[in-house]
Amino acid sequence: MSADLLIVGSMAYDSVKTPHGKRERILGGSASYCSMAASYFCDPAIIAVVGEDFQAADRALLQGHGVDLSAVETVKGAKTFHWKGEYGDNLNEAVTLRTDLNVLSDFDPAVPPELRGVPFLFLANIDPDAQLKVIEQVEAPRFIAADTMNFWIDNKRERLMRVIPLVDALIINEAEAKELTGEHNTFKAARVILEWGPETLIIKRGEYGVLVVSSEDLFAAPAYPIERVVDPTGAGDTFAGGFMGFLAGSELPRNPSVVRQAVIAGSVMASFDVEDFSLSNLASLDVAAREKRFRDFSTLTRFETPKAFPKAGRK
Amino acid sequence: MSADLLIVGSMAYDSVKTPHGKRERILGGSASYCSMAASYFCDPAIIAVVGEDFQAADRALLQGHGVDLSAVETVKGAKTFHWKGEYGDNLNEAVTLRTDLNVLSDFDPAVPPELRGVPFLFLANIDPDAQLKVIEQVEAPRFIAADTMNFWIDNKRERLMRVIPLVDALIINEAEAKELTGEHNTFKAARVILEWGPETLIIKRGEYGVLVVSSEDLFAAPAYPIERVVDPTGAGDTFAGGFMGFLAGSELPRNPSVVRQAVIAGSVMASFDVEDFSLSNLASLDVAAREKRFRDFSTLTRFETPKAFPKAGRK
Repeated sequence: MSADLLIVGSMAYDSVKTPHGKRERILGGSASYCSMAASYFCDPAIIAVVGEDFQAADRALLQGHGVDLSAVETVKGAKTFHWKGEYGDNLNEAVTLRTDLNVLSDFDPAVPPELRGVPFLFLANIDPDAQLKVIEQVEAPRFIAADTMNFWIDNKRERLMRVIPLVDALIINEAEAKELTGEHNTFKAARVILEWGPETLIIKRGEYGVLVVSSEDLFAAPAYPIERVVDPTGAGDTFAGGFMGFLAGSELPRNPSVVRQAVIAGSVMASFDVEDFSLSNLASLDVAAREKRFRDFSTLTRFETPKAFPKAGRK
Repeated sequence: MSADLLIVGSMAYDSVKTPHGKRERILGGSASYCSMAASYFCDPAIIAVVGEDFQAADRALLQGHGVDLSAVETVKGAKTFHWKGEYGDNLNEAVTLRTDLNVLSDFDPAVPPELRGVPFLFLANIDPDAQLKVIEQVEAPRFIAADTMNFWIDNKRERLMRVIPLVDALIINEAEAKELTGEHNTFKAARVILEWGPETLIIKRGEYGVLVVSSEDLFAAPAYPIERVVDPTGAGDTFAGGFMGFLAGSELPRNPSVVRQAVIAGSVMASFDVEDFSLSNLASLDVAAREKRFRDFSTLTRFETPKAFPKAGRK
């Protein structure tokens, strides 16, 4: 089965401490989370770089879910990207304690010939120069989405501003949308970004959910209510994986209704991610659990419009 | 027409500075905002206290919307509660520059005989001792809701804990729900509060909307997207007014579906409030504008559940 979604990002080992426990060197990275989530809806392939320390078991976990790792490069004598972070009681934001870029510092993604015709492309949060290189190598994908972060906004703004007009969807955090545009109001920031070229803007609001803004649509989805958030690492990448995977795997033409469904699919996958460390929970989902949570989302947000409003006739 | 909703709270003059302008001594206060919003759906009455400086025009504005002010006490030789505050660029939170309690320092609400049988009661954010006194004076209303704030949680916790079991709904900010319970997770905090007695908890999340948690229901509503927030003062009280007004004015039996509609009604009213200073925008709404925004809310949040999920048969 040839891949229908190409994901370019990081594969990592994370050392994480949260109020629910501590884990050393567990599988992480944007491409790992994203591809695992996408694998439930489509056939993803990853472009990433790892060191010689990358474990066969972690490779097998992703491959077991149908993730094509043939374009993952292993650098001899080098180590996999390592991130160490800690979450406080509110679990909203990690404090980074250590970042060992290792192999990631020279990441120069090469798209092999057999992946150049891939219809869906997701550029996770990597150097905008690397994002541009990937876009140059692919042959007119039907849909490109990209993520970014404050580090690139601050340090590679000019390059990032070359990426943005080339993507169909930008998927970023609310604070980053504001920082990128200098606008304090989210909806104003969204309009500015859409003027730069993307057809769709997906704004991630963490525990408050997701906004979709396009010229055709405005959609607000809450996050799925989770009482026990064990480890929020990877939630944004997992969201992107569910979102892109749903679009790539769907037989339906892309329209606002399908984009909304893809957002819910992404939100469902992110909600499973945060319930355990690493990809543990994500890797073991069954169809029934996913579809139930999708329906629960609908129950969570639905309301009726009254046939007659109280006192409407009097005022 | 006798009142069907009694609101106990403050009437105030506010001096407000926001990025969109500056206003001195404009009409404010929880009871003012709340009653104006409620007046579109039901027949509210206020219990509050003002000073001799309270303007006839402000009285007329509320009365013109059918708000019963017969139980508003005017204290001779004293001044109306005055609040001065300023909002920064993000408009999320005010910095209080000055609070002149004036008449509010001795507020001892008395419910006149003709209002004791009122079916709906809203206790705005006032001293829990005053809230208790009002509850003692009314004759078994069908539905009581109360708001509170961090000041009372910190300084009158024991009295507040007597109010909570007596109300049907607690309507509070998310940060206050966490502070009140010591829980960092909103849904855990909600369960703790429900165990204390209220049937329904309404959690206000500012620009992120509202959560409803009860033993029967869990509902998440976003805030209506507003590009130009002029002055957020009173949004929470306006929400409560729309919510309580909708319930009080509705002919329908109270059930989760009607509570959801009331939450949207409250959110619609709050969205109008923030578009201008004081009650200016709220006071001049027509039926069509309100009902259109209600329907827009539905468009904003609605999504379809796919008949078949991509790849569902394969995994």
